[in-house]
Amino acid sequence: MNQTNKIKAGVIGATGYAGAELIRLLSAHPAVGIAAVSSVSFEGQTMDAVYPNLAGICSLTLQKAEDVVAASDVVFASLPHGLSEPIARLCADNGKVLVDFGADFRLHDEAQYTKWYDGKVFTEPDLHRLAVYSIPELHRSLIGQAPIIANPGCYPTSVALGLAPLLKAGYADTDHIIVDSKSGVTGAGRSLTQGTHYPDTNEAFAAYKAGVHRHTPEIEQTLSELAGKPMKVTFVPHLLPVNRGIESSIYLPIKKSKAEIRALYEDFYRSERFVRLMPDGEYANIRNVRVSNYCDISLHFDAHTGTLIVSSVIDNMVKGAAGQAIQNMNIRFGLDEAAGLLSAPPIF
Amino acid sequence: MNQTNKIKAGVIGATGYAGAELIRLLSAHPAVGIAAVSSVSFEGQTMDAVYPNLAGICSLTLQKAEDVVAASDVVFASLPHGLSEPIARLCADNGKVLVDFGADFRLHDEAQYTKWYDGKVFTEPDLHRLAVYSIPELHRSLIGQAPIIANPGCYPTSVALGLAPLLKAGYADTDHIIVDSKSGVTGAGRSLTQGTHYPDTNEAFAAYKAGVHRHTPEIEQTLSELAGKPMKVTFVPHLLPVNRGIESSIYLPIKKSKAEIRALYEDFYRSERFVRLMPDGEYANIRNVRVSNYCDISLHFDAHTGTLIVSSVIDNMVKGAAGQAIQNMNIRFGLDEAAGLLSAPPIF
Amino acid sequence: MNQTNKIKAGVIGATGYAGAELIRLLSAHPAVGIAAVSSVSFEGQTMDAVYPNLAGICSLTLQKAEDVVAASDVVFASLPHGLSEPIARLCADNGKVLVDFGADFRLHDEAQYTKWYDGKVFTEPDLHRLAVYSIPELHRSLIGQAPIIANPGCYPTSVALGLAPLLKAGYADTDHIIVDSKSGVTGAGRSLTQGTHYPDTNEAFAAYKAGVHRHTPEIEQTLSELAGKPMKVTFVPHLLPVNRGIESSIYLPIKKSKAEIRALYEDFYRSERFVRLMPDGEYANIRNVRVSNYCDISLHFDAHTGTLIVSSVIDNMVKGAAGQAIQNMNIRFGLDEAAGLLSAPPIF
Amino acid sequence: MNQTNKIKAGVIGATGYAGAELIRLLSAHPAVGIAAVSSVSFEGQTMDAVYPNLAGICSLTLQKAEDVVAASDVVFASLPHGLSEPIARLCADNGKVLVDFGADFRLHDEAQYTKWYDGKVFTEPDLHRLAVYSIPELHRSLIGQAPIIANPGCYPTSVALGLAPLLKAGYADTDHIIVDSKSGVTGAGRSLTQGTHYPDTNEAFAAYKAGVHRHTPEIEQTLSELAGKPMKVTFVPHLLPVNRGIESSIYLPIKKSKAEIRALYEDFYRSERFVRLMPDGEYANIRNVRVSNYCDISLHFDAHTGTLIVSSVIDNMVKGAAGQAIQNMNIRFGLDEAAGLLSAPPIF
Repeated sequence: MNQTNKIKAGVIGATGYAGAELIRLLSAHPAVGIAAVSSVSFEGQTMDAVYPNLAGICSLTLQKAEDVVAASDVVFASLPHGLSEPIARLCADNGKVLVDFGADFRLHDEAQYTKWYDGKVFTEPDLHRLAVYSIPELHRSLIGQAPIIANPGCYPTSVALGLAPLLKAGYADTDHIIVDSKSGVTGAGRSLTQGTHYPDTNEAFAAYKAGVHRHTPEIEQTLSELAGKPMKVTFVPHLLPVNRGIESSIYLPIKKSKAEIRALYEDFYRSERFVRLMPDGEYANIRNVRVSNYCDISLHFDAHTGTLIVSSVIDNMVKGAAGQAIQNMNIRFGLDEAAGLLSAPPIF
Repeated sequence: MNQTNKIKAGVIGATGYAGAELIRLLSAHPAVGIAAVSSVSFEGQTMDAVYPNLAGICSLTLQKAEDVVAASDVVFASLPHGLSEPIARLCADNGKVLVDFGADFRLHDEAQYTKWYDGKVFTEPDLHRLAVYSIPELHRSLIGQAPIIANPGCYPTSVALGLAPLLKAGYADTDHIIVDSKSGVTGAGRSLTQGTHYPDTNEAFAAYKAGVHRHTPEIEQTLSELAGKPMKVTFVPHLLPVNRGIESSIYLPIKKSKAEIRALYEDFYRSERFVRLMPDGEYANIRNVRVSNYCDISLHFDAHTGTLIVSSVIDNMVKGAAGQAIQNMNIRFGLDEAAGLLSAPPIF
Repeated sequence: MNQTNKIKAGVIGATGYAGAELIRLLSAHPAVGIAAVSSVSFEGQTMDAVYPNLAGICSLTLQKAEDVVAASDVVFASLPHGLSEPIARLCADNGKVLVDFGADFRLHDEAQYTKWYDGKVFTEPDLHRLAVYSIPELHRSLIGQAPIIANPGCYPTSVALGLAPLLKAGYADTDHIIVDSKSGVTGAGRSLTQGTHYPDTNEAFAAYKAGVHRHTPEIEQTLSELAGKPMKVTFVPHLLPVNRGIESSIYLPIKKSKAEIRALYEDFYRSERFVRLMPDGEYANIRNVRVSNYCDISLHFDAHTGTLIVSSVIDNMVKGAAGQAIQNMNIRFGLDEAAGLLSAPPIF
Repeated sequence: MNQTNKIKAGVIGATGYAGAELIRLLSAHPAVGIAAVSSVSFEGQTMDAVYPNLAGICSLTLQKAEDVVAASDVVFASLPHGLSEPIARLCADNGKVLVDFGADFRLHDEAQYTKWYDGKVFTEPDLHRLAVYSIPELHRSLIGQAPIIANPGCYPTSVALGLAPLLKAGYADTDHIIVDSKSGVTGAGRSLTQGTHYPDTNEAFAAYKAGVHRHTPEIEQTLSELAGKPMKVTFVPHLLPVNRGIESSIYLPIKKSKAEIRALYEDFYRSERFVRLMPDGEYANIRNVRVSNYCDISLHFDAHTGTLIVSSVIDNMVKGAAGQAIQNMNIRFGLDEAAGLLSAPPIF
């Protein structure tokens, strides 16, 4: 495919970690060219001046968001919540597809959005009706010609993929699941905080926002849909002293046998290219999925209490953000779903 | 106290991590002198040849275990399970006090020991009747003149201290508790394994031995005693890419109010010098207890599911091993319980 | 290019780090297919059983070295020194091209090889005459139809690229250069050693083999060729607590002006795709080249002593091993030199 | 010594890393009590609210600097350069001893201070005549009753101790020495910067301020005094992804034999309690001195170029700041020089 036939992609919020990671991935996409990039903080500078790893790869000048929309067929927006709705309006009015990394379009229930996001309301309710929330393995059939794709959060992706086979099969004899998650520090973004200052984070480990993290309603929304009944989670994230990666250890009571559960997962993910079930006895490890779009899942059984433990790992910046966004875009534009996402994960 | 009046301490298995950490701590103890050290692997070498951080601090030559027993008033043994019982016999026959870091004397129920430890049996049953398992904050009154103190495991210490106030008060409306623990790599010891090779461990994270870790029966034993009824845990440890520290996130349903629970913990630990309750809203973090004998505990509530989350952190080599051993020895010998353990934790 | 037209590549020593990294890179090469892999330690197992990051990417069974040679057009061998010469003979006798990661064919002067490598001699002297040592940016014109390419060592690559413009221009007014290098732990390989056990390496830093590292004669060989006169280096490597990356800080007296030196480097590397000169005032950082084939170079001047400092960084497993090997193979087979090497470096 | 007889110490700038480390160390000092602490940023809060590792150890309220001076016998000030001179005046006028961690009193030559520190001048020239710069092993005899002790910088301490025996003996046949140093991230302090944001620092490594770091004139001042002739250094620091520790690799031509050099160092440091010479063949490693006041030195020889390599390691926050300050205070007040500094370094 020559350059002129390529889909023109624009990135709004290109200098955040998810944006920069997206540019890294798009630069190797066979059917997409990066048309324009924007950043409020670094407007007027070039992308590779801010991210020197991209020298020789992307030296576009950072523009305004509106310029990005104008130059693009598909717009990726990675913005703090509340800022994507105006971009979505602009895209919709100009016939551009939006893949949104933010929280604005993830929750179907406005009341939940208001409750968890500072009392905010939906300012573009008609667009919410058009938006599709998509973890491709679970929602790809819904995408169709949707003008807006709400790209899922990192933690919710790891949890939903870890539980989907079970919940869809109706095997969960509970409506309350414990989720103990751990995320690498890039999950906290590029903004400087005391909690992500190197000496504070290195050789450290702690939970944060236990029971009150904003991904809670997003996780519950997906699990409830999968189970066909209201599901609740106790969700406790922890900050892990690594750059990339999320591991979610998920606990729930189980009555089915190990063999039945394993067969269920094997069937469910047999034809998925980005979900790998670990061999029996092995543990999902973030190092096997780093810098890749894979989700690895391992299943463990505590026989003496009748508890299933699911360990689900992803790279928070790829399958948890930029990679999944490309996967969604590929589906939306009729490309091979794995285009641009096939490079093998480096183990180290 | 001059050198000749000091208690003579011997360390068997001195070149393992717990042993070396014990020697570091004992070297600053005001009432104890290190009399002799042993190591099978490094017999004949000096301690500081194996651990150059101890140059100028401990240059004793590593001897045989029997020589250590002969030279000491109190013997600390840090050995693989099954090897402490003969040492205990030797100590008992010679009137020496033994503080054992191994698993041999931790479990009261031989059947549990046999089940979890390769089918082994108690070879010195009379000594088991004399041994006291002691997390000092919970068991100090049991020590008396016991000839053998079974020093607890690292994970069990973090879990028991995290739950003791609640269980003793009868506030737990469950007999099944989820424990998601994470340990620094020193917890795996000095032996070389692929899983602790630097590139395999750095930037990595995974669970291991989910539901089948040998600390499970030890945790259940203590929790059951505290609760006065049989308690079960689903215990899932994870390997954390840091040198030191354990964090246990503990989940259980709760009916009492936040205020009641908090008051309970404040009361319980008010006069304890090594247990600190984090201010409301703060999270226990391994970096605040590293290289110290503290256990920090924070309490969190997931109101929408009625779940209490306790986060309990310790340094696995100090409160989880060598420091707690000294604390137990201090009690046994009538010293100030905190002697030799008061240096403040360095934050970094 | 369809599968049947692809160049058939074989990897001997596939389960070492360099071998596994090569397989990761080759799996995305547009013109090469992996035909066979071998490993002494893991013969009979599959590649992805040993490296679970490669699940779904390479599940070939590990065979014997001879089987790899038979199945391949090009053979990559990553073996301890002394073991490549017999493989080279087998390749030569069967018309297979060999890209050798080992030291066997790097040194032109047998006396140097004997001196630095345990007294070993060249067992296949005729093959040494046919082998080409190649850092592509410096030696690509020598490759021609050579049957054996000696792939350079990691440290020597970083040093030679850091100094080449200067030495070729005759700007070095010295025959003795100080090189202070630091390498990530993958440089020490997969074998378990106390020095690469996680707790020993994490939060640690030290020099090793100061003045006596085997890469010394290889560095001096290349620098002498570049300078057209005998050059010596004081080479001191250090072990850096990161997985990947080498930084070499190189010190030499300088008489030319900053502007002259900078212009020289810009000219020399203008058309190179894998060497990037940092903007004035910026520092080469291993994080910008990780998991990529780039070499970044920055130039610094200590005016008050008349000293030039060159900082040169590479990924030890890519530009320092597997990536450079592919670059050499691409040249040897008339492919685009950058084929399979163009994915952008992830910053984290 | 009971509490009322203790020397009253005050800490100005207590919430910087050096200040907090000082408080940690002073809290265990047998002859000193912490009387008052100050912080501009956190005035009115308690020390342990800012540093939760100090809970139960130091809960003093952070006051104003003047209040600290009033309450103390000895004042430690850890302030940005230019701010210590007014504190020194206040101390001098009130008969308080000042140990200054800043740069204000380190350089004897005002012209050098002006050149390297933004054109600043000495505002209290009379006090400069009374101040003593002291690395105790080199300058303890100068301290006497000095009212002001200029506590050395971290890098200069590692370099001066690494070279002192050699320079004092007149063995250096050069007036130009190459110093390649690497520092843990606490050396950059508590202030948030992009360069010390966790993801930017972890798995990263680069030089910074090559040839232009402000410690250069301080290093040259000490080396020149030791050598009795003007000495210059090319000083290149690097940021090391660890919390604590400095390693300096120092290069200089050498004519004396290995044995002569080694004997010289052994003699020079024989009675020093905080300087340890590594056994022949071993390398100084930051992990052996972490959280301690030790300086470890190893000597290496590159025979084929006639170069001596000295590797000198310290903990930047202890021997490089707070520990050395206490050592200086101990001398000034006639205490055992090692008081409060004897706890053994934890290896991990």
